[in-house]
Amino acid sequence: INSKLPDVGVTIFTVMSRLATETRAINLGQGFPDFDPDAGLLAQVDAAMAAGHNQYAPMPGIPALRAAIAAKTRALYGAAYDPETEITVTSGATQALMTAILAVAGAGDEVIVLEPNYDSYVPAIRLAGAVPVAVQLLAPTPEVPGYRPDWDAVRRAITPRTRALVINFPHNPTGAVLDESDLDELERILADTGVVLISDEVYEHIVFDDRRHASIARRPALAARSFLVSSFGKTFHTTGWKIGYCCAPAALSAEFRKIHQFMVFAVSTPMQYALSTFLEDPRHYLELPAFYQAKRDRLEAGLKQTRFRTLPCPGTYFLLADYSAISDAPESEFARWLTTEHGVAVIPIAAFHADPDAPASNRQLVRFCFAKKDSTLDAALERLKRV
Amino acid sequence: INSKLPDVGVTIFTVMSRLATETRAINLGQGFPDFDPDAGLLAQVDAAMAAGHNQYAPMPGIPALRAAIAAKTRALYGAAYDPETEITVTSGATQALMTAILAVAGAGDEVIVLEPNYDSYVPAIRLAGAVPVAVQLLAPTPEVPGYRPDWDAVRRAITPRTRALVINFPHNPTGAVLDESDLDELERILADTGVVLISDEVYEHIVFDDRRHASIARRPALAARSFLVSSFGKTFHTTGWKIGYCCAPAALSAEFRKIHQFMVFAVSTPMQYALSTFLEDPRHYLELPAFYQAKRDRLEAGLKQTRFRTLPCPGTYFLLADYSAISDAPESEFARWLTTEHGVAVIPIAAFHADPDAPASNRQLVRFCFAKKDSTLDAALERLKRV
Ligand SMILES: CSCCC(=O)C(=O)O
Ligand SMILES: CSCCC(=O)C(=O)O
Repeated sequence: INSKLPDVGVTIFTVMSRLATETRAINLGQGFPDFDPDAGLLAQVDAAMAAGHNQYAPMPGIPALRAAIAAKTRALYGAAYDPETEITVTSGATQALMTAILAVAGAGDEVIVLEPNYDSYVPAIRLAGAVPVAVQLLAPTPEVPGYRPDWDAVRRAITPRTRALVINFPHNPTGAVLDESDLDELERILADTGVVLISDEVYEHIVFDDRRHASIARRPALAARSFLVSSFGKTFHTTGWKIGYCCAPAALSAEFRKIHQFMVFAVSTPMQYALSTFLEDPRHYLELPAFYQAKRDRLEAGLKQTRFRTLPCPGTYFLLADYSAISDAPESEFARWLTTEHGVAVIPIAAFHADPDAPASNRQLVRFCFAKKDSTLDAALERLKRV
Repeated sequence: INSKLPDVGVTIFTVMSRLATETRAINLGQGFPDFDPDAGLLAQVDAAMAAGHNQYAPMPGIPALRAAIAAKTRALYGAAYDPETEITVTSGATQALMTAILAVAGAGDEVIVLEPNYDSYVPAIRLAGAVPVAVQLLAPTPEVPGYRPDWDAVRRAITPRTRALVINFPHNPTGAVLDESDLDELERILADTGVVLISDEVYEHIVFDDRRHASIARRPALAARSFLVSSFGKTFHTTGWKIGYCCAPAALSAEFRKIHQFMVFAVSTPMQYALSTFLEDPRHYLELPAFYQAKRDRLEAGLKQTRFRTLPCPGTYFLLADYSAISDAPESEFARWLTTEHGVAVIPIAAFHADPDAPASNRQLVRFCFAKKDSTLDAALERLKRV
């Protein structure tokens, strides 16, 4: 058969997690916590199963969970999504993103992505028959030491064929976040276009140093043209439950649901019940920044005692570090070497570029995931000090 | 935006389940049990969560579940699928079917489906950019009172552009099953073609009267060109957990996984652990035919005392009944009337046809789901006797 995705192999996350397991390395690669979700949340799954919630959920999600998502989104961002017609519960953010892309993009369309980017966007765009157009983030400089969106480049990339723009802030893998002036820019750039915005905000609750997450849902003009995608995996330490959601105006949600209902029909009923109850207490997500900020600080402080040089991390649970003082090797080679020789698995940033050999990639950066127990971080740091 | 699926509305299952809830009707429409899964299975989910299995599963599924699926498929059908490269755990059979269709079919391709058919096949084919080609099942006659596949018509429908054939036996909604001679026919029909077979076997464990399920996995020549799709929802009374799987030769599985990993990446880790343990005891599926046969017989016997005329039901948990002695109304109208006026929700067979007004549909048949407590079936029968 003709491959729909001839360039796709196994993802870098799978590759590095396998290598970590095989070599018994400490896995700071793939982004998932090595600690457990709240016991109260697990108890809610039990309770839901025992209460008989084991059959098909309604296609767009159980009403209680959609209502809880609407309430959270209103409380945090002032957005008024109608749970009946504008919120759909999905099998993780990944399914929501593919569904949104398939809903809007087709043959002849262009979809802009910001590079580096999460590895599912481009294959989803290709599967839709559309053409991915990569705009590089502004790379760190001595003056601006972190990655930043390059709005001018985005503006220049828009053509009459541009169907959608995919953004992801807090940004994986760079940790970059948006502020209000970025939302202003986005509004201006999209104002006179027909471009649909697809905003992957799975790290919405993980922003540091008293920042306020600049969700596109804060701006009615953006929300009116957007699919807002998020998930509970990163927020409640349940990456393996695969429950996410998509908020979008009714017309966009209607097209989204047409595909969703034949892609998965509905998602795990007991998990939906558990999450809807757990979401009622806002502390469960409001306490997240402090929790992860302490881990970021721990990793950052530890890495200062190594030959890695860290980049700023205003959000996400990922920290980038420059290894040029240690090695000249390209990123993937370095990441493998660090795993096999020093027992710490990381992710090369080149893997987040369509062309891993392009000059924009291979900046001698690797990504550390700090969603780990303090003892795991400490053990990894011990090893990294010897590099 | 241009709709990718302009003809798609909310599915008939959602429509009828909503109507049933609104009118407090007994819901014999959408196919799901109104009783609970085995308590031992629920306990396994608890155990998995408590053991810390809450983060991403490996992309193709946890090894223990893939091994258990391989063992079951070998024991029942003699097929030797390699869990490493040929079995992928999915978010239900629906996701597996869409993924298989997207993996093989594209613009210019034709995909044959047998009508009536489950409502996700045709939209998935359209989403792939391919053209669905419907071949009608042979309708019941006085001599052959149940639906049957029309292999001659399938043979005639194959063209050089045919990319795949989707089959589904035991068949939803008609209950039709295949026997060994059907597998012979299928082998002959496909022998000199490049057609990929996509076999939806979610009712594989629900065949009656000592029949043996004629899985395509019994025939190496078929398995070598097929995606075999099944699920645990129907087998373990957990339709809301959304765990299914796809078995296919390595080359087909590789293309399947390329899409799967960006559609959902992986599926619920705790449910996968629970199912892998539960599958170890074959009684959990070997006892299913007797369990459902008793319910089929109960419903059939009860309907004999009404003005409905039942069709044979050799498999699935659905029974078709002819209502022509009661009403001249077209199927959807009758189904709504039965729900609102008599408090029993059913599914019109016309909903399983691409053209619900075609002569092949609207045969004055409705589908009853008997995956219900005996008390539910008895209460529904009381109401149906008054029709
Ligand atoms: C689905 S595996 C990847 C997890 C993740 O978000 C990351 O590591 O970037
Ligand atoms: C996913 S809802 C439909 C359930 C089902 O298989 C049926 O009723 O036919």
